Amino acid sequence: MQFDMKNETILKLGLPKGSLQDAALAKMAKAGFNISVSSRSYVPYVDDEELMIRLIRAQEISRYVEHGYLDCGITGYDWIKENDSDVHEVGEFIFSKATSQPARWVLAVPENSTIKSVKDLEGKRIATEVVNITKRYLRKNKVKAEVEFSWGATEVKAHELVDAIVEITETGSSLRANKLRIVDTLMISTPRLIVNHEAWKDEWKRKKIETLAMLLKGALEAETKVGVKMNVSQENLPKLLQSLPALRNPTVSTLSQDGWVAVETLIDERVVRELIPQLKALGAEGIIEYPLNKVVY
Amino acid sequence: MQFDMKNETILKLGLPKGSLQDAALAKMAKAGFNISVSSRSYVPYVDDEELMIRLIRAQEISRYVEHGYLDCGITGYDWIKENDSDVHEVGEFIFSKATSQPARWVLAVPENSTIKSVKDLEGKRIATEVVNITKRYLRKNKVKAEVEFSWGATEVKAHELVDAIVEITETGSSLRANKLRIVDTLMISTPRLIVNHEAWKDEWKRKKIETLAMLLKGALEAETKVGVKMNVSQENLPKLLQSLPALRNPTVSTLSQDGWVAVETLIDERVVRELIPQLKALGAEGIIEYPLNKVVY
Amino acid sequence: MQFDMKNETILKLGLPKGSLQDAALAKMAKAGFNISVSSRSYVPYVDDEELMIRLIRAQEISRYVEHGYLDCGITGYDWIKENDSDVHEVGEFIFSKATSQPARWVLAVPENSTIKSVKDLEGKRIATEVVNITKRYLRKNKVKAEVEFSWGATEVKAHELVDAIVEITETGSSLRANKLRIVDTLMISTPRLIVNHEAWKDEWKRKKIETLAMLLKGALEAETKVGVKMNVSQENLPKLLQSLPALRNPTVSTLSQDGWVAVETLIDERVVRELIPQLKALGAEGIIEYPLNKVVY
Amino acid sequence: MQFDMKNETILKLGLPKGSLQDAALAKMAKAGFNISVSSRSYVPYVDDEELMIRLIRAQEISRYVEHGYLDCGITGYDWIKENDSDVHEVGEFIFSKATSQPARWVLAVPENSTIKSVKDLEGKRIATEVVNITKRYLRKNKVKAEVEFSWGATEVKAHELVDAIVEITETGSSLRANKLRIVDTLMISTPRLIVNHEAWKDEWKRKKIETLAMLLKGALEAETKVGVKMNVSQENLPKLLQSLPALRNPTVSTLSQDGWVAVETLIDERVVRELIPQLKALGAEGIIEYPLNKVVY
Amino acid sequence: MQFDMKNETILKLGLPKGSLQDAALAKMAKAGFNISVSSRSYVPYVDDEELMIRLIRAQEISRYVEHGYLDCGITGYDWIKENDSDVHEVGEFIFSKATSQPARWVLAVPENSTIKSVKDLEGKRIATEVVNITKRYLRKNKVKAEVEFSWGATEVKAHELVDAIVEITETGSSLRANKLRIVDTLMISTPRLIVNHEAWKDEWKRKKIETLAMLLKGALEAETKVGVKMNVSQENLPKLLQSLPALRNPTVSTLSQDGWVAVETLIDERVVRELIPQLKALGAEGIIEYPLNKVVY
Amino acid sequence: MQFDMKNETILKLGLPKGSLQDAALAKMAKAGFNISVSSRSYVPYVDDEELMIRLIRAQEISRYVEHGYLDCGITGYDWIKENDSDVHEVGEFIFSKATSQPARWVLAVPENSTIKSVKDLEGKRIATEVVNITKRYLRKNKVKAEVEFSWGATEVKAHELVDAIVEITETGSSLRANKLRIVDTLMISTPRLIVNHEAWKDEWKRKKIETLAMLLKGALEAETKVGVKMNVSQENLPKLLQSLPALRNPTVSTLSQDGWVAVETLIDERVVRELIPQLKALGAEGIIEYPLNKVVY
Repeated sequence: MQFDMKNETILKLGLPKGSLQDAALAKMAKAGFNISVSSRSYVPYVDDEELMIRLIRAQEISRYVEHGYLDCGITGYDWIKENDSDVHEVGEFIFSKATSQPARWVLAVPENSTIKSVKDLEGKRIATEVVNITKRYLRKNKVKAEVEFSWGATEVKAHELVDAIVEITETGSSLRANKLRIVDTLMISTPRLIVNHEAWKDEWKRKKIETLAMLLKGALEAETKVGVKMNVSQENLPKLLQSLPALRNPTVSTLSQDGWVAVETLIDERVVRELIPQLKALGAEGIIEYPLNKVVY
Repeated sequence: MQFDMKNETILKLGLPKGSLQDAALAKMAKAGFNISVSSRSYVPYVDDEELMIRLIRAQEISRYVEHGYLDCGITGYDWIKENDSDVHEVGEFIFSKATSQPARWVLAVPENSTIKSVKDLEGKRIATEVVNITKRYLRKNKVKAEVEFSWGATEVKAHELVDAIVEITETGSSLRANKLRIVDTLMISTPRLIVNHEAWKDEWKRKKIETLAMLLKGALEAETKVGVKMNVSQENLPKLLQSLPALRNPTVSTLSQDGWVAVETLIDERVVRELIPQLKALGAEGIIEYPLNKVVY
Repeated sequence: MQFDMKNETILKLGLPKGSLQDAALAKMAKAGFNISVSSRSYVPYVDDEELMIRLIRAQEISRYVEHGYLDCGITGYDWIKENDSDVHEVGEFIFSKATSQPARWVLAVPENSTIKSVKDLEGKRIATEVVNITKRYLRKNKVKAEVEFSWGATEVKAHELVDAIVEITETGSSLRANKLRIVDTLMISTPRLIVNHEAWKDEWKRKKIETLAMLLKGALEAETKVGVKMNVSQENLPKLLQSLPALRNPTVSTLSQDGWVAVETLIDERVVRELIPQLKALGAEGIIEYPLNKVVY
Repeated sequence: MQFDMKNETILKLGLPKGSLQDAALAKMAKAGFNISVSSRSYVPYVDDEELMIRLIRAQEISRYVEHGYLDCGITGYDWIKENDSDVHEVGEFIFSKATSQPARWVLAVPENSTIKSVKDLEGKRIATEVVNITKRYLRKNKVKAEVEFSWGATEVKAHELVDAIVEITETGSSLRANKLRIVDTLMISTPRLIVNHEAWKDEWKRKKIETLAMLLKGALEAETKVGVKMNVSQENLPKLLQSLPALRNPTVSTLSQDGWVAVETLIDERVVRELIPQLKALGAEGIIEYPLNKVVY
Repeated sequence: MQFDMKNETILKLGLPKGSLQDAALAKMAKAGFNISVSSRSYVPYVDDEELMIRLIRAQEISRYVEHGYLDCGITGYDWIKENDSDVHEVGEFIFSKATSQPARWVLAVPENSTIKSVKDLEGKRIATEVVNITKRYLRKNKVKAEVEFSWGATEVKAHELVDAIVEITETGSSLRANKLRIVDTLMISTPRLIVNHEAWKDEWKRKKIETLAMLLKGALEAETKVGVKMNVSQENLPKLLQSLPALRNPTVSTLSQDGWVAVETLIDERVVRELIPQLKALGAEGIIEYPLNKVVY
Repeated sequence: MQFDMKNETILKLGLPKGSLQDAALAKMAKAGFNISVSSRSYVPYVDDEELMIRLIRAQEISRYVEHGYLDCGITGYDWIKENDSDVHEVGEFIFSKATSQPARWVLAVPENSTIKSVKDLEGKRIATEVVNITKRYLRKNKVKAEVEFSWGATEVKAHELVDAIVEITETGSSLRANKLRIVDTLMISTPRLIVNHEAWKDEWKRKKIETLAMLLKGALEAETKVGVKMNVSQENLPKLLQSLPALRNPTVSTLSQDGWVAVETLIDERVVRELIPQLKALGAEGIIEYPLNKVVY
């Protein structure tokens, strides 16, 4: 089952196993690549004969891409940096939708700790899953402290077992529930598509990767956009278009009813809740919003 | 963590916890408000800084809105009435889609009971979760009977422990499975957006609530509508439009193929299954139906 | 609760219970028939008073359709043949989307078995869930072998308990995991809508079934198609349309921006990943892909 | 299925449904009554033809025992008092083993609340599931406050929606996790076997209930006791027996080895961890501890 | 992985996979054979190098024992008869404890069916999982009826799809819930240890199987027995022993307290609930009941 | 919540969180310490006021014991060595019962790898969770190879991503399922009770730990032993005792039946299955085996 490294019409892609797995497979599906994970979950089936997928822990993907065991992979910026991997980065992909804040690695201490800034860590002990990132951060801040690897449940350690932790968070609610206070942010991390340098020089692989990146980007872009369509009288049309720059380059079509046109365009899903009341105020009627699968500019 | 009641640019919204919770959060998401419930499920995160959400049992929301602990909330008409809460009602929202029948509180007895109408309840015992609604119903019908609060599993009690029950049902299948017969309907209940009277007088809050109501209504409306698009020869167009009043105010666009136009409009999802065969019979081709996120007239 | 066989405005439809159930109900919902399965899962509720649904094992549906206990049903081609049922077949429906390969019943043996073709089965023992299909296959190949019914977990038996198995597979990954080798394919099976011969002669039932088939086909067709819309300069339009036959009969609409048009059409979801790079190369901009509920030609 | 109230050789027993159900059925099994709950969980099967069991919410059992719909039942002391039920109480049974503290209903407030004693509740609002117990407690303390029924999740309400709560707790850990402080204890509650007054006068029923109580008590007693057996030289025996009053009335048997005897007795499971080191110090050897099913003095 | 049939110091044992699996493994563990099922559940690990275990559906075990693929197996009497397998039967083992009634295959019809006895089945259709047992039963009763194999959910078929069913039941509660009436009992079935005739002639295998049977029987016997120990005055001893024949051949030991003895014996777990009150009445004190692992007479 | 290190009558004990957690808590319960894990699982409740328990990953316990944040802990020998922790080891406790083989860290390679011994690893890459143990093993064998930390799912890596792995196994079945071959065993690991050196010098803590160790050892010992009791005629007694040295120092009691005695003793659970047939052959009757909670010699 050893990879045949000479086969240049197979692209070996690593996807993150575990907590990011479902999101990654869902994005791949939206990009047009249907993946089914059988009982032996490490080697899933994908409906593209030019693609070979491996499910690997996000922490390790960059290492295997760097060494060429994989041509490319999707993993977090944090683990690329933690592993200090020398890889080519093709693009950034925001997977999460539930919250508007990206994942951050933060320095946190008990609410009532006397530690107020990184300088107060001098001589202290810190537990974290990202030992290298933390050590680099301390060096940059000229602070000497002991950093120890945490196998998990890092948050509970801050109260008794160490002086501070470096932990990942999105909304901060888990830190608050553990009565921890954020002192500083070390790194903001988002998923990246990374490529082995040799693979990137191979024309066929590079083209395959660029197409994959375009489709993935199109799928992710589509999650933040919606299609909007509305009817407006020709009389109100100029004011509507002028007042609302969010309505970029709309399609304008004739309606069967005289004097009315249909206006259609894409807008950011996040402005919809403010835009719709404005559209109504400017005379739009029959406003509909519909979902998108992909958006490629 | 006490609410700061003076802050007038925060809207406090109660959403129903429990069986309605997933539906309510899904509707809010369709309306454009992404809510993520962390481990401490009472205080979820929402991606709108002007909104503060509390997850509370549907039975209690109207009470806290009435007293001003919440500015507004979504709960069932039944519990507003059971609590006899003095609140302002902004709108009605049908959440359920699985069945076409709304939730009803009904008087039910064993299939072979001698109770045939409310009058036969004189001197009997009734178990229910809605004690006040039931007592009011009996008073209105001039019947004297004992009403006792049921903590749940009300349906099994009708055979041995009481003479009748007042229970909620949609399709009636659970009542039938328990060999119960419906005698009368006390109340039909649907979800409502209710507002505290003081909050409704506050201009900023009222506007925020009205926008929320519009977006929610748009999201719910979209669940009962679909977009339909088809190609038709210009020759057949008039007859098509004339015969099918369901095709309200369609958009008509030119096709690249001469003599043909594209017709697009919204229709009720429930008539699609009858409409499509008719459209085909009238010469429509390439009929497609697509989903909608919001519909705001 | 006995079916009233005289009622000619009720269509009795059997749907597969078990592994195919969720898929079947989802397809029915996309076709416009919302079904809710209560605790007594055999008799679900459907929001169409002319329809009566029974959930029955896929293996048995054709038997009850043949005998007239059901008017029609959806089940696999394999079980129609295994039961040798005399029914009218209205249409074929591909349910699965995860993989591009349909379900196949294959003859499989241990990787290191000496059995290389059906001829080598002479005098051997075969375990399978489809005893009749397997016996017919052996007769056709003039091979004498013992066929025994397998109650499940057929794959593990091939190594110790029998000489070969006939088992269903899609991607073959479960066979590979069990170290089995495929020797031959006996049958490819897809879901079918089948009708009792008497029911098919009844005008009302036939019309109801044809509408159901049209809507189901439209829903399934929609799963393999997507809507695509893009902007293109009038200059580039002819070349774009000419180069890409996949863009069948598109709608062309005026854009508010001079010299540009919007092109909209349906395409196979499976070609999107190749088409989008080509569209970009030919000057298309603002390409969007959106999902469909139904496609009826 | 109506109870035949004239049948005097059937005892109708109500057991608590829900959180206490598994514990109650396990204790009944230890007492020698095997109960199997089928899908219709209200009427379980029991392997005693003289027993008829109903699973009912703990909150309601005393009400139905009082009215004679049940002859007897097992429920908490709290709900007997909350319902103010006039029933005969046969015995107290401690079900829980995980913690050594019984369930308590406590008055709790936010950690930083100014409420320090019941007197500070004057004019405040209290949420609780035990409205009557709470109102009686306030009357006894001559405090006027509003008490409202809480449908659940009472703990989160104390911070925003009311001033105090009355809630049940064992170890207090859930209250601490919600940052609440216990102000007072209203009631300690344990499971009780209660009997309808009429049933208690019936000789056959009374005898049946007394046997049930004896067996249940024996099973519960056995959970707090263990059997202990050890070898000791006849020389050391007197000192051992004298020093350890916990070794009540032991059996002393001859060992095959001369000069040694075996000593066997019951002791409280809770003292084992202190007793064993003492036994060893006093010369005991081969100490074994074994589990018990029932202990009836 | 083919069995090496020449190895005469390995015993190949088939255990039932599926609903009986957990019970079977638990009984084997009580007999002293610890089995751990890894992910590939067909070949579990057992801590006895002379034993090789296969997990196979209960329906199929007798077939593979008969043909010698397994030396022996544990399966139900029903499936041995359904398969008409020629095997040697070593013993009967009652696995279930929850209910006192063994599994029965019964003929059942809708409550309001006109079928009152087997004779009324003439010309009818019957669905069942045990086609051969049912056909033999009909032949014996000289009734001609059609018997069809049911793939499951047999109970719901009796109302619409066939005239009667033959189904397995213990307490009958599932039949009652489906409103079915039992007409006749075809067979009572219990688990059996069966052996291949050749294997039974092999001395080593026979001895191994007999030991296995003895240990299993001892483990199962222990589930229906308990140890009982009590103190009684020497004065009361004769009457106690004489009155209670259930106290077979007890051990009588001296107590440290003068004039008292300890009496210890085994009794049926099912009589405990009647015996304990009698023992107390006869002057026994400190009665304890303790569990057993094995009982071998 | 900081530990008060001066409090000398509190013993701080770390127990392994995760896969070993349930086993560890069960053993503690058998030892007499009932622990209940609430929602905040790091700080469980224990019914001993002198004990403070923390649930920590097995990988980290030795580190916190070494540094004095915990007085003592239970963890695997492997992680003590991996962390190279300087702690006092009090005892070894075998937790697992399912299999008779202890956990081993083994060097494994694909079945068809050319690596036959540790020497063949020269210049290769090895993935493992125990980087330090593996490096030490290589040094000892004078082999130079790259060792990289594996975050999990190590077994699938051996085929494509590295040349060999060092992984933990009990029965080896998971390695076989992944088609891996064991080359060498690096370490056998069992749970240990370890103590901080300072804590061990504290008299109160040392005594508390020794008691805990004695009770735990007694509980674990009891899992490998059973009590056995049988009746034998006085005539057969000498031969029985002489032939079976496993019957160490039994208790011999008089039976009520003349000429018979009861013999009772402890034996290894693992020899029961061989011993019982021998006992029967030697004339023993009414053999019973019963479970034990603790055995302290």
